[in-house]
Amino acid sequence: MDLKMGYLGPEGTFSEEAARLIAGSNRRALQRYDNISDVIEAVQTGKVDEGIVPLENSLEGGVNITQDLLVGLEGVFIVNELIYPVNHCLLAKKSTALDEIDTVCSHPQALGQCRDYLRRKLPGAVCRPVESTAAAAALASDSYRTAAIAPRRAAELFKLEIMAEGIQDYFDNLTRFIVLARREQPPTGKDKTSLVLAIPDGPGSLYRILGLFARSNINLTRIESRPARRHLGDYLFFIDCEGHRSDPRLTVLLQKLQANVVFLKFLGSYPCSNHSV
Amino acid sequence: MDLKMGYLGPEGTFSEEAARLIAGSNRRALQRYDNISDVIEAVQTGKVDEGIVPLENSLEGGVNITQDLLVGLEGVFIVNELIYPVNHCLLAKKSTALDEIDTVCSHPQALGQCRDYLRRKLPGAVCRPVESTAAAAALASDSYRTAAIAPRRAAELFKLEIMAEGIQDYFDNLTRFIVLARREQPPTGKDKTSLVLAIPDGPGSLYRILGLFARSNINLTRIESRPARRHLGDYLFFIDCEGHRSDPRLTVLLQKLQANVVFLKFLGSYPCSNHSV
Repeated sequence: MDLKMGYLGPEGTFSEEAARLIAGSNRRALQRYDNISDVIEAVQTGKVDEGIVPLENSLEGGVNITQDLLVGLEGVFIVNELIYPVNHCLLAKKSTALDEIDTVCSHPQALGQCRDYLRRKLPGAVCRPVESTAAAAALASDSYRTAAIAPRRAAELFKLEIMAEGIQDYFDNLTRFIVLARREQPPTGKDKTSLVLAIPDGPGSLYRILGLFARSNINLTRIESRPARRHLGDYLFFIDCEGHRSDPRLTVLLQKLQANVVFLKFLGSYPCSNHSV
Repeated sequence: MDLKMGYLGPEGTFSEEAARLIAGSNRRALQRYDNISDVIEAVQTGKVDEGIVPLENSLEGGVNITQDLLVGLEGVFIVNELIYPVNHCLLAKKSTALDEIDTVCSHPQALGQCRDYLRRKLPGAVCRPVESTAAAAALASDSYRTAAIAPRRAAELFKLEIMAEGIQDYFDNLTRFIVLARREQPPTGKDKTSLVLAIPDGPGSLYRILGLFARSNINLTRIESRPARRHLGDYLFFIDCEGHRSDPRLTVLLQKLQANVVFLKFLGSYPCSNHSV
């Protein structure tokens, strides 16, 4: 039997598109959940073997929610990532002409991201924000005069025609998803490691911590600070760096970090993603 | 005549609540816009004098969108900030009993943030995600069996009763809003400064930049990296530090930074916010 992977629904969203892509290439059966905490809980309790959740720049879920939940995770690790381009399509019922469309529905962020296109091509249409790109596609499938901005996958699910593809104003709109499991991922030779740490407030404290990375010649690929209100220290730092936890350089660095921070949590070591396109 | 302040609508959301709070204490007339880019454009083109937009942890707007727009801003500065607690209320029509409620509507993130409360108090109710807390309140005002999770303000607007307040699972859920204007804010004695900078990729490059802050004894209050795809350098760093641009220490630091980064943008110096509660 296939392993099960939990994802953030509904069907027809970018989250589902990304989940299908990664599940397809790893032979996983998908199990839908309504929110990010349910996906993560399903991994923790063993209802699913893996879970995929958005971490950055998602249209359908909260980045901060994922980060907050990662801090408190026990026995669950990041085992993979997928950097997925948000590619907006204009969808409508078959044989609809562009000038027949009087309403365009989508998630508010998606409408915002296609603003130039809508201004140029559908200046007369009313924009109607709805809760997800999937809900927009469902509305479009009910009316000839309503179009949806949604991922390609929604066209298939709701039997809609793709009237235009790649209609976002910027082409660098990427969402980063992570895959969680109750095991650590073995090294592949080209890995990254995610950590959360808390350092005391004060000038130079982050500088001193980053000095440990610099002197180990370990490159950071991401750093993000967040106020740490339920944890020791004044700030939490989400740090991604190159290498696997089992690399000797990183093993030594982690020991040094442990001695210099007030909180350190290893989130996982996993293969560096190339973009999915 | 009052000055005008643009904000992200609709009415009855946390964005509107925050805008009313800051507009009320500064005698500004509010002007609603449907998305963050429209608020910022209205400031740039002079349609409004100021605009308030969510920067971090918003339920109703995109953090990344605000950040992306800040990088490209010309002639507009951050002049104030407001750190606003997200305080979820359970709203329903007057005289509704808790056990009559069969559906709870809200923004998906709000539903996720009140999950423990809903499990304990409304285990039989169906959660229905909608596009905003305001849309949820509108639905609740149409049916006796439907409740909404929404801010206090929505109760007033939609004539609903507050059945419970502060129902979020965590009490440290804060949204940070910034106020933008076509002028710089003069120093108040307790200010912070926001910058965006790009540094070349490579081990230790962030460390060297933070060394300039540490040696100037200037404390960082926030750092966030984002891949810089349309800009020079490989990463953009959003940095907040203590002090006003006109402070001699910060003036010297900015000159040093300019000589050591590939891109530097001053976003504004403005008074440090205390929490609004």
